[in-house]
Amino acid sequence: MNDATRDIEALIELMARLPGLGPRSARRAVLHMIKKRALLMIPLADVLQNVAASARECLTCGNVGTTDICDICTSEKRATGELCVVEDVADLWAMERAGAFKGRYHVLGGTLSALDGVGPEDLSIPRLRDRIADENITEVILALNATVDGQTTAHYIADALEGRVTVTTLAQGVPIGGELDYLDDGTISAALRARKSF
Amino acid sequence: MNDATRDIEALIELMARLPGLGPRSARRAVLHMIKKRALLMIPLADVLQNVAASARECLTCGNVGTTDICDICTSEKRATGELCVVEDVADLWAMERAGAFKGRYHVLGGTLSALDGVGPEDLSIPRLRDRIADENITEVILALNATVDGQTTAHYIADALEGRVTVTTLAQGVPIGGELDYLDDGTISAALRARKSF
Repeated sequence: MNDATRDIEALIELMARLPGLGPRSARRAVLHMIKKRALLMIPLADVLQNVAASARECLTCGNVGTTDICDICTSEKRATGELCVVEDVADLWAMERAGAFKGRYHVLGGTLSALDGVGPEDLSIPRLRDRIADENITEVILALNATVDGQTTAHYIADALEGRVTVTTLAQGVPIGGELDYLDDGTISAALRARKSF
Repeated sequence: MNDATRDIEALIELMARLPGLGPRSARRAVLHMIKKRALLMIPLADVLQNVAASARECLTCGNVGTTDICDICTSEKRATGELCVVEDVADLWAMERAGAFKGRYHVLGGTLSALDGVGPEDLSIPRLRDRIADENITEVILALNATVDGQTTAHYIADALEGRVTVTTLAQGVPIGGELDYLDDGTISAALRARKSF
């Protein structure tokens, strides 16, 4: 096996570490790339090289971008005064795709978890307090996942910020396009409790 | 959105074209890479760049490597005289992992398929004939998938080579570790037909 063949092996081994890929699917992906060399592999290699050189976390909100302060934090079009708190960058991107929020974000970097030993100081909760004071925030919108850990974290933050700022959270209920027959009991109960006049 | 942020979007879009990944899992993979920048993203970018620059198909057997003639074809340790015919490079790699075959390979590049308009001239069947003559091949082992298309192709090749070379095929039967209760009827029938003295 020469050096270059070892590179193919190394590529498969690295690809297999990505979430959602294992050794078998990584091999398949690498073979596919090699077959589509001009259309897929070379552009992918170039763009990955660029991103690897430039990607970093926003020092203000924790979003992933290519500058020290991300595009959202620097944008003059985004409303000041509102902060949307999310667990992870993926959640921030999901909010952005929905396109309904025009304020700025704060990425926690996870959820509180007694089991995994994650306390408030391991997340960016202290920085959230600082931002609320520094940026004259009036409303904090908790857009945390509707999981046990997510909701525990939401309660902790709401308690910690009580009296300093308005804290709201995403509504819970029937998803758009959702069929009652396929929904879990908890969602139906939540939607019924939060019912509104038609 | 600046140029560099567009690179992240472009990276997600390219990753989503890999088999086994969609837009959502590509986003997840890219975020994971950015988080593991030093350990995963930078090595991956480097090795991908190397492979993109050097990967090519072996001119003799169709295996993927980094030289015009692959390591297996040039190896002096591999038996001459035996050719193992596989559909795809992934199958060649599977044979190599098993480590049971010490000869050389011939990658067809697919299977015959009347439905998809794939004829013998679209595969490397003419080259297989040439190799049998040029390399003094005495046995061709058909290691094609046990699918309808794979077996059709096996029959076609066996007919085409009849009288010129010994043509054999992989045995069919109960897989190692297989439980009869979970096997399909066809496999059980094949294993019974091909039963051997204990």
